Amino acid sequence: MDNTFPARRGVVLILSSPSGAGKTTLTRMMLQDRDLDLTLSISVTTRARRSSEVDGIHYRFIGEKQFIAARDAGELLEWAEVHGNYYGTPRAPVEAILAQGRDCLFDIDYQGTRQVREKLSADTVSVFILPPSMKELRARLERRAEDSRDVIEKRLENARREIARWKEYDYVIVNDDLQRSFDDLIAILRAERQRRPRREDGMEAFVEKLLSE
Amino acid sequence: MDNTFPARRGVVLILSSPSGAGKTTLTRMMLQDRDLDLTLSISVTTRARRSSEVDGIHYRFIGEKQFIAARDAGELLEWAEVHGNYYGTPRAPVEAILAQGRDCLFDIDYQGTRQVREKLSADTVSVFILPPSMKELRARLERRAEDSRDVIEKRLENARREIARWKEYDYVIVNDDLQRSFDDLIAILRAERQRRPRREDGMEAFVEKLLSE
Repeated sequence: MDNTFPARRGVVLILSSPSGAGKTTLTRMMLQDRDLDLTLSISVTTRARRSSEVDGIHYRFIGEKQFIAARDAGELLEWAEVHGNYYGTPRAPVEAILAQGRDCLFDIDYQGTRQVREKLSADTVSVFILPPSMKELRARLERRAEDSRDVIEKRLENARREIARWKEYDYVIVNDDLQRSFDDLIAILRAERQRRPRREDGMEAFVEKLLSE
Repeated sequence: MDNTFPARRGVVLILSSPSGAGKTTLTRMMLQDRDLDLTLSISVTTRARRSSEVDGIHYRFIGEKQFIAARDAGELLEWAEVHGNYYGTPRAPVEAILAQGRDCLFDIDYQGTRQVREKLSADTVSVFILPPSMKELRARLERRAEDSRDVIEKRLENARREIARWKEYDYVIVNDDLQRSFDDLIAILRAERQRRPRREDGMEAFVEKLLSE
Protein backbone atom coordinates (compact mmCIF):
# COMPACT_ATOMS: atom_id res chain seq x y z
CA MET A 1 0.00 0.00 0.00
CA ASP A 2 2.83 2.43 0.68
CA ASN A 3 3.58 3.99 -2.70
CA THR A 4 5.15 7.08 -1.28
CA PHE A 5 7.86 7.59 -3.79
CA PRO A 6 10.02 9.64 -3.30
CA ALA A 7 11.04 8.94 0.29
CA ARG A 8 9.11 10.53 3.11
CA ARG A 9 9.32 10.87 6.85
CA GLY A 10 7.20 8.43 8.85
CA VAL A 11 3.87 9.17 10.51
CA VAL A 12 3.25 9.00 14.26
CA LEU A 13 -0.34 7.75 14.27
CA ILE A 14 -1.94 8.30 17.67
CA LEU A 15 -5.17 6.54 18.60
CA SER A 16 -7.03 7.69 21.69
CA SER A 17 -10.46 6.80 23.02
CA PRO A 18 -12.29 6.13 26.23
CA SER A 19 -12.04 2.49 27.25
CA GLY A 20 -14.72 0.44 25.49
CA ALA A 21 -14.89 2.60 22.35
CA GLY A 22 -12.89 0.11 20.30
CA LYS A 23 -9.35 1.46 20.34
CA THR A 24 -7.72 -1.79 21.46
CA THR A 25 -9.50 -3.81 18.77
CA LEU A 26 -8.68 -1.24 16.08
CA THR A 27 -5.04 -1.14 17.19
CA ARG A 28 -4.84 -4.92 16.88
CA MET A 29 -6.45 -4.84 13.42
CA MET A 30 -4.00 -2.18 12.24
CA LEU A 31 -1.01 -4.17 13.51
CA GLN A 32 -2.26 -7.46 12.04
CA ASP A 33 -2.51 -5.90 8.58
CA ARG A 34 1.12 -6.50 7.58
CA ASP A 35 0.80 -4.39 4.42
CA LEU A 36 0.38 -1.32 6.62
CA ASP A 37 3.86 -1.92 8.07
CA LEU A 38 2.98 -0.21 11.35
CA THR A 39 5.17 -0.52 14.42
CA LEU A 40 3.51 -0.24 17.82
CA SER A 41 5.39 1.98 20.21
CA ILE A 42 6.18 -0.05 23.36
CA SER A 43 6.06 1.89 26.61
CA VAL A 44 8.45 1.52 29.50
CA THR A 45 7.05 1.19 33.02
CA THR A 46 8.30 0.85 36.56
CA ARG A 47 5.36 -1.24 37.72
CA ALA A 48 5.79 -4.94 38.39
CA ARG A 49 5.21 -7.32 35.47
CA ARG A 50 2.00 -9.34 35.72
CA SER A 51 2.16 -13.06 35.01
CA SER A 52 0.12 -12.47 31.81
CA GLU A 53 2.67 -9.98 30.45
CA VAL A 54 5.87 -10.40 28.45
CA ASP A 55 8.75 -7.95 28.79
CA GLY A 56 9.26 -6.09 25.51
CA ILE A 57 5.79 -6.97 24.19
CA HIS A 58 3.32 -5.41 26.60
CA TYR A 59 5.84 -3.07 28.22
CA ARG A 60 9.51 -2.82 28.79
CA PHE A 61 9.82 -3.20 32.56
CA ILE A 62 12.55 -1.00 34.02
CA GLY A 63 13.62 0.28 37.43
CA GLU A 64 12.59 3.63 38.86
CA LYS A 65 16.13 5.01 38.85
CA GLN A 66 16.51 4.15 35.19
CA PHE A 67 13.13 5.68 34.37
CA ILE A 68 13.88 8.96 36.14
CA ALA A 69 17.31 9.20 34.52
CA ALA A 70 15.78 8.70 31.05
CA ARG A 71 13.02 11.21 31.74
CA ASP A 72 15.42 13.85 33.08
CA ALA A 73 17.72 13.36 30.10
CA GLY A 74 14.80 14.17 27.77
CA GLU A 75 14.74 10.65 26.37
CA LEU A 76 10.98 10.20 26.77
CA LEU A 77 8.37 11.51 24.30
CA GLU A 78 5.73 11.41 27.03
CA TRP A 79 5.41 10.11 30.54
CA ALA A 80 2.93 9.91 33.41
CA GLU A 81 2.72 8.71 36.98
CA VAL A 82 -0.29 6.53 37.78
CA HIS A 83 -0.88 5.07 41.27
CA GLY A 84 2.79 5.55 42.15
CA ASN A 85 4.10 3.84 39.00
CA TYR A 86 5.79 5.54 36.06
CA TYR A 87 4.89 4.97 32.42
CA GLY A 88 6.63 6.50 29.40
CA THR A 89 7.58 6.29 25.72
CA PRO A 90 11.29 6.28 24.81
CA ARG A 91 12.09 8.64 21.97
CA ALA A 92 15.03 6.88 20.26
CA PRO A 93 13.22 3.82 18.80
CA VAL A 94 10.41 6.02 17.45
CA GLU A 95 12.88 8.40 15.80
CA ALA A 96 14.71 5.47 14.20
CA ILE A 97 11.48 4.17 12.62
CA LEU A 98 10.40 7.62 11.38
CA ALA A 99 13.79 8.26 9.80
CA GLN A 100 13.33 5.05 7.76
CA GLY A 101 10.09 6.50 6.38
CA ARG A 102 8.09 3.95 8.37
CA ASP A 103 5.15 4.65 10.65
CA CYS A 104 4.56 4.27 14.39
CA LEU A 105 1.29 3.54 16.13
CA PHE A 106 0.65 5.04 19.58
CA ASP A 107 -2.13 3.90 21.87
CA ILE A 108 -2.18 6.74 24.45
CA ASP A 109 -4.58 9.16 26.12
CA TYR A 110 -5.02 12.90 25.55
CA GLN A 111 -2.36 13.83 28.08
CA GLY A 112 0.20 11.64 26.33
CA THR A 113 -1.00 12.96 22.95
CA ARG A 114 -0.31 16.52 24.04
CA GLN A 115 3.23 15.69 25.09
CA VAL A 116 4.04 13.77 21.89
CA ARG A 117 2.59 16.56 19.75
CA GLU A 118 4.82 19.07 21.51
CA LYS A 119 7.91 17.04 20.64
CA LEU A 120 7.03 15.66 17.20
CA SER A 121 4.39 18.06 15.96
CA ALA A 122 5.09 17.76 12.24
CA ASP A 123 5.02 13.95 12.40
CA THR A 124 1.96 13.51 14.56
CA VAL A 125 -1.48 12.50 13.30
CA SER A 126 -4.02 12.08 16.09
CA VAL A 127 -7.32 10.23 15.87
CA PHE A 128 -10.01 10.15 18.52
CA ILE A 129 -12.44 7.23 18.55
CA LEU A 130 -15.90 7.98 19.95
CA PRO A 131 -18.56 5.44 20.93
CA PRO A 132 -21.92 5.84 19.13
CA SER A 133 -23.68 6.31 22.49
CA MET A 134 -22.99 6.05 26.23
CA LYS A 135 -25.50 3.20 26.35
CA GLU A 136 -23.42 1.28 23.80
CA LEU A 137 -20.22 2.10 25.71
CA ARG A 138 -21.76 0.71 28.92
CA ALA A 139 -22.97 -2.37 27.07
CA ARG A 140 -19.46 -3.01 25.69
CA LEU A 141 -17.88 -2.64 29.13
CA GLU A 142 -20.49 -4.99 30.65
CA ARG A 143 -20.04 -7.55 27.85
CA ARG A 144 -16.33 -7.76 28.65
CA ALA A 145 -17.46 -9.02 32.07
CA GLU A 146 -14.02 -8.46 33.48
CA ASP A 147 -14.88 -5.58 35.74
CA SER A 148 -17.12 -5.15 38.77
CA ARG A 149 -20.12 -2.79 38.73
CA ASP A 150 -18.05 -0.17 40.62
CA VAL A 151 -15.16 -0.37 38.19
CA ILE A 152 -17.55 0.01 35.23
CA GLU A 153 -19.08 3.13 36.79
CA LYS A 154 -15.59 4.49 37.33
CA ARG A 155 -14.66 3.76 33.71
CA LEU A 156 -17.79 5.51 32.45
CA GLU A 157 -16.93 8.50 34.61
CA ASN A 158 -13.43 8.60 33.08
CA ALA A 159 -14.88 8.10 29.60
CA ARG A 160 -16.95 11.26 29.95
CA ARG A 161 -13.86 13.24 30.90
CA GLU A 162 -11.90 11.86 27.96
CA ILE A 163 -14.71 12.34 25.43
CA ALA A 164 -14.74 16.04 26.33
CA ARG A 165 -11.21 16.22 24.81
CA TRP A 166 -12.21 15.34 21.24
CA LYS A 167 -11.33 18.82 19.98
CA GLU A 168 -7.63 18.26 20.58
CA TYR A 169 -7.49 15.68 17.77
CA ASP A 170 -6.88 15.95 14.02
CA TYR A 171 -9.54 13.37 13.16
CA VAL A 172 -12.63 12.08 14.95
CA ILE A 173 -14.28 8.74 14.14
CA VAL A 174 -17.61 7.64 15.58
CA ASN A 175 -17.13 3.88 15.88
CA ASP A 176 -20.60 2.57 15.11
CA ASP A 177 -19.27 -0.03 12.66
CA LEU A 178 -15.89 -1.64 13.26
CA GLN A 179 -15.07 -2.42 9.60
CA ARG A 180 -15.92 1.10 8.52
CA SER A 181 -13.87 2.63 11.32
CA PHE A 182 -10.96 0.39 10.33
CA ASP A 183 -11.27 1.48 6.67
CA ASP A 184 -11.37 5.12 7.82
CA LEU A 185 -8.17 4.63 9.79
CA ILE A 186 -6.43 3.04 6.81
CA ALA A 187 -7.56 5.95 4.59
CA ILE A 188 -6.24 8.46 7.13
CA LEU A 189 -2.86 6.72 7.22
CA ARG A 190 -2.69 6.44 3.43
CA ALA A 191 -3.66 10.11 2.94
CA GLU A 192 -1.27 11.40 5.59
CA ARG A 193 1.59 9.56 3.92
CA GLN A 194 0.95 11.72 0.83
CA ARG A 195 0.88 15.03 2.69
CA ARG A 196 3.23 17.48 1.11
CA PRO A 197 5.01 18.74 4.28
CA ARG A 198 5.89 15.14 5.20
CA ARG A 199 7.49 14.64 1.80
CA GLU A 200 9.24 17.98 1.45
CA ASP A 201 12.84 16.65 1.38
CA GLY A 202 12.38 13.69 -0.94
CA MET A 203 10.02 15.61 -3.20
CA GLU A 204 12.38 18.57 -3.44
CA ALA A 205 15.10 16.28 -4.79
CA PHE A 206 12.64 14.49 -7.09
CA VAL A 207 11.29 17.71 -8.66
CA GLU A 208 14.79 19.09 -9.08
CA LYS A 209 15.77 15.98 -11.00
CA LEU A 210 12.52 16.12 -12.98
CA LEU A 211 13.09 19.72 -14.05
CA SER A 212 16.72 19.08 -14.99
CA GLU A 213 15.73 16.33 -17.45
CA MET B 1 -18.32 5.25 1.46
CA ASP B 2 -19.34 8.41 3.26
CA ASN B 3 -19.91 7.41 6.84
CA THR B 4 -19.39 10.84 8.25
CA PHE B 5 -21.96 10.81 10.95
CA PRO B 6 -22.67 13.35 12.40
CA ALA B 7 -23.12 15.84 9.58
CA ARG B 8 -20.11 17.66 8.20
CA ARG B 9 -19.34 20.42 5.77
CA GLY B 10 -18.33 19.35 2.27
CA VAL B 11 -14.82 19.21 0.87
CA VAL B 12 -13.59 21.29 -2.07
CA LEU B 13 -11.19 18.80 -3.65
CA ILE B 14 -8.85 20.58 -6.08
CA LEU B 15 -6.80 18.60 -8.59
CA SER B 16 -4.01 20.37 -10.44
CA SER B 17 -1.29 19.06 -12.70
CA PRO B 18 0.62 19.90 -15.84
CA SER B 19 -1.18 18.66 -18.93
CA GLY B 20 -0.34 15.01 -19.60
CA ALA B 21 0.22 14.06 -15.95
CA GLY B 22 -3.14 12.28 -15.71
CA LYS B 23 -5.43 14.84 -14.10
CA THR B 24 -8.20 14.57 -16.71
CA THR B 25 -8.27 10.76 -16.48
CA LEU B 26 -8.25 10.83 -12.67
CA THR B 27 -11.03 13.44 -12.65
CA ARG B 28 -13.14 11.20 -14.88
CA MET B 29 -12.47 8.15 -12.67
CA MET B 30 -13.46 10.09 -9.56
CA LEU B 31 -16.70 11.29 -11.16
CA GLN B 32 -17.60 7.86 -12.53
CA ASP B 33 -17.33 6.32 -9.05
CA ARG B 34 -20.90 7.11 -7.98
CA ASP B 35 -20.23 6.04 -4.38
CA LEU B 36 -17.90 9.03 -4.02
CA ASP B 37 -20.84 11.38 -4.74
CA LEU B 38 -18.54 14.07 -6.14
CA THR B 39 -19.91 17.02 -8.10
CA LEU B 40 -17.64 18.60 -10.71
CA SER B 41 -17.60 22.36 -10.56
CA ILE B 42 -18.60 23.72 -14.00
CA SER B 43 -16.84 26.91 -15.07
CA VAL B 44 -18.43 29.80 -16.90
CA THR B 45 -16.66 31.25 -19.92
CA THR B 46 -17.12 34.04 -22.44
CA ARG B 47 -15.41 32.19 -25.27
CA ALA B 48 -17.49 30.74 -28.13
CA ARG B 49 -18.79 27.21 -27.71
CA ARG B 50 -17.03 24.65 -29.90
CA SER B 51 -19.15 22.17 -31.80
CA SER B 52 -17.82 19.37 -29.58
CA GLU B 53 -19.02 21.12 -26.42
CA VAL B 54 -22.35 21.13 -24.60
CA ASP B 55 -23.50 24.16 -22.62
CA GLY B 56 -23.72 23.28 -18.91
CA ILE B 57 -21.52 20.19 -19.27
CA HIS B 58 -18.15 21.45 -20.49
CA TYR B 59 -18.76 25.09 -19.57
CA ARG B 60 -21.63 27.44 -19.05
CA PHE B 61 -21.27 29.87 -21.94
CA ILE B 62 -22.17 33.43 -20.97
CA GLY B 63 -21.70 36.94 -22.34
CA GLU B 64 -18.87 39.24 -21.35
CA LYS B 65 -21.17 41.76 -19.67
CA GLN B 66 -22.72 39.04 -17.56
CA PHE B 67 -19.26 37.70 -16.66
CA ILE B 68 -17.88 41.04 -15.58
CA ALA B 69 -21.00 41.83 -13.56
CA ALA B 70 -20.72 38.49 -11.72
CA ARG B 71 -17.01 38.99 -11.12
CA ASP B 72 -17.42 42.53 -9.83
CA ALA B 73 -20.25 41.43 -7.54
CA GLY B 74 -17.87 38.89 -5.92
CA GLU B 75 -19.88 35.96 -7.28
CA LEU B 76 -16.83 34.08 -8.63
CA LEU B 77 -14.54 31.89 -6.56
CA GLU B 78 -11.77 32.32 -9.11
CA TRP B 79 -11.39 33.77 -12.58
CA ALA B 80 -8.79 34.34 -15.28
CA GLU B 81 -8.46 35.92 -18.68
CA VAL B 82 -6.84 33.73 -21.35
CA HIS B 83 -6.31 34.94 -24.93
CA GLY B 84 -8.97 37.62 -24.45
CA ASN B 85 -11.59 35.22 -23.06
CA TYR B 86 -12.79 35.06 -19.49
CA TYR B 87 -13.10 31.89 -17.43
CA GLY B 88 -14.44 31.62 -13.89
CA THR B 89 -16.14 29.53 -11.19
CA PRO B 90 -19.46 30.75 -9.75
CA ARG B 91 -19.57 30.60 -6.00
CA ALA B 92 -23.27 29.93 -5.32
CA PRO B 93 -23.59 26.34 -6.68
CA VAL B 94 -20.42 25.31 -4.84
CA GLU B 95 -21.66 26.78 -1.56
CA ALA B 96 -24.99 24.97 -1.97
CA ILE B 97 -23.26 21.60 -2.37
CA LEU B 98 -20.89 22.17 0.58
CA ALA B 99 -23.77 23.17 2.84
CA GLN B 100 -25.41 19.80 2.09
CA GLY B 101 -22.26 18.07 3.36
CA ARG B 102 -21.43 16.98 -0.18
CA ASP B 103 -18.12 17.41 -1.96
CA CYS B 104 -17.02 19.39 -5.02
CA LEU B 105 -14.25 18.50 -7.45
CA PHE B 106 -12.24 21.30 -9.07
CA ASP B 107 -9.96 20.81 -12.04
CA ILE B 108 -7.98 24.08 -12.02
CA ASP B 109 -4.39 25.36 -12.14
CA TYR B 110 -2.29 26.86 -9.33
CA GLN B 111 -3.54 30.37 -9.97
CA GLY B 112 -7.15 29.27 -9.62
CA THR B 113 -6.20 27.17 -6.59
CA ARG B 114 -4.78 30.23 -4.86
CA GLN B 115 -7.97 32.21 -5.41
CA VAL B 116 -10.27 29.41 -4.22
CA ARG B 117 -8.11 28.83 -1.16
CA GLU B 118 -8.37 32.50 -0.27
CA LYS B 119 -12.16 32.32 -0.34
CA LEU B 120 -12.84 28.82 1.01
CA SER B 121 -9.69 28.06 2.95
CA ALA B 122 -11.22 25.77 5.57
CA ASP B 123 -13.02 23.71 2.93
CA THR B 124 -10.20 23.37 0.42
CA VAL B 125 -8.07 20.26 -0.05
CA SER B 126 -5.56 20.62 -2.87
CA VAL B 127 -3.73 17.80 -4.62
CA PHE B 128 -0.96 18.17 -7.16
CA ILE B 129 -0.35 15.34 -9.62
CA LEU B 130 3.23 14.98 -10.85
CA PRO B 131 4.42 12.87 -13.79
CA PRO B 132 7.06 10.23 -12.94
CA SER B 133 9.48 11.87 -15.42
CA MET B 134 9.56 14.53 -18.15
CA LYS B 135 10.31 11.75 -20.63
CA GLU B 136 7.07 10.04 -19.65
CA LEU B 137 5.18 13.35 -19.80
CA ARG B 138 6.45 13.95 -23.34
CA ALA B 139 5.54 10.39 -24.34
CA ARG B 140 1.98 10.87 -23.01
CA LEU B 141 1.56 14.13 -24.91
CA GLU B 142 2.90 12.51 -28.10
CA ARG B 143 0.66 9.44 -27.68
CA ARG B 144 -2.40 11.70 -27.64
CA ALA B 145 -1.36 12.69 -31.17
CA GLU B 146 -3.68 15.66 -31.06
CA ASP B 147 -1.04 18.35 -30.98
CA SER B 148 1.70 19.48 -33.34
CA ARG B 149 5.39 19.31 -32.38
CA ASP B 150 5.38 23.04 -31.58
CA VAL B 151 2.33 22.76 -29.34
CA ILE B 152 3.88 19.84 -27.48
CA GLU B 153 7.07 21.84 -26.85
CA LYS B 154 4.94 24.72 -25.59
CA ARG B 155 2.99 22.36 -23.29
CA LEU B 156 6.24 20.94 -21.88
CA GLU B 157 7.47 24.47 -21.25
CA ASN B 158 4.24 25.27 -19.37
CA ALA B 159 4.47 21.95 -17.52
CA ARG B 160 7.86 22.92 -16.10
CA ARG B 161 6.45 26.20 -14.81
CA GLU B 162 3.48 24.45 -13.23
CA ILE B 163 5.55 21.65 -11.68
CA ALA B 164 7.60 24.29 -9.87
CA ARG B 165 4.40 25.15 -7.90
CA TRP B 166 4.05 21.79 -6.13
CA LYS B 167 4.78 23.34 -2.74
CA GLU B 168 1.51 25.26 -2.77
CA TYR B 169 -0.50 22.03 -2.43
CA ASP B 170 -1.66 20.00 0.57
CA TYR B 171 -0.87 16.66 -1.07
CA VAL B 172 1.46 15.58 -3.86
CA ILE B 173 1.01 12.36 -5.83
CA VAL B 174 3.58 11.04 -8.30
CA ASN B 175 1.36 9.37 -10.90
CA ASP B 176 3.48 6.40 -11.95
CA ASP B 177 0.54 3.99 -11.61
CA LEU B 178 -2.97 5.16 -12.40
CA GLN B 179 -4.83 2.71 -10.14
CA ARG B 180 -2.57 3.54 -7.21
CA SER B 181 -2.96 7.27 -7.76
CA PHE B 182 -6.74 6.81 -7.92
CA ASP B 183 -6.70 4.84 -4.65
CA ASP B 184 -4.57 7.59 -3.08
CA LEU B 185 -7.10 10.22 -4.14
CA ILE B 186 -9.98 8.21 -2.69
CA ALA B 187 -8.05 7.81 0.58
CA ILE B 188 -7.38 11.56 0.71
CA LEU B 189 -11.07 12.33 0.20
CA ARG B 190 -12.15 9.74 2.77
CA ALA B 191 -9.63 10.98 5.34
CA GLU B 192 -10.43 14.65 4.80
CA ARG B 193 -14.11 13.94 5.39
CA GLN B 194 -13.13 12.77 8.90
CA ARG B 195 -11.03 15.83 9.75
CA ARG B 196 -12.15 17.32 13.00
CA PRO B 197 -12.34 21.00 11.93
CA ARG B 198 -14.66 20.04 9.08
CA ARG B 199 -16.98 18.30 11.52
CA GLU B 200 -16.86 20.79 14.36
CA ASP B 201 -20.56 21.80 14.30
CA GLY B 202 -22.14 18.39 13.90
CA MET B 203 -19.68 16.79 16.30
CA GLU B 204 -20.25 19.46 18.93
CA ALA B 205 -23.97 18.63 18.95
CA PHE B 206 -23.27 14.89 18.91
CA VAL B 207 -20.86 14.99 21.87
CA GLU B 208 -23.19 17.22 23.84
CA LYS B 209 -25.98 14.68 23.37
CA LEU B 210 -23.58 11.82 24.20
CA LEU B 211 -22.51 13.42 27.48
CA SER B 212 -26.07 14.26 28.48
CA GLU B 213 -27.15 10.58 28.23
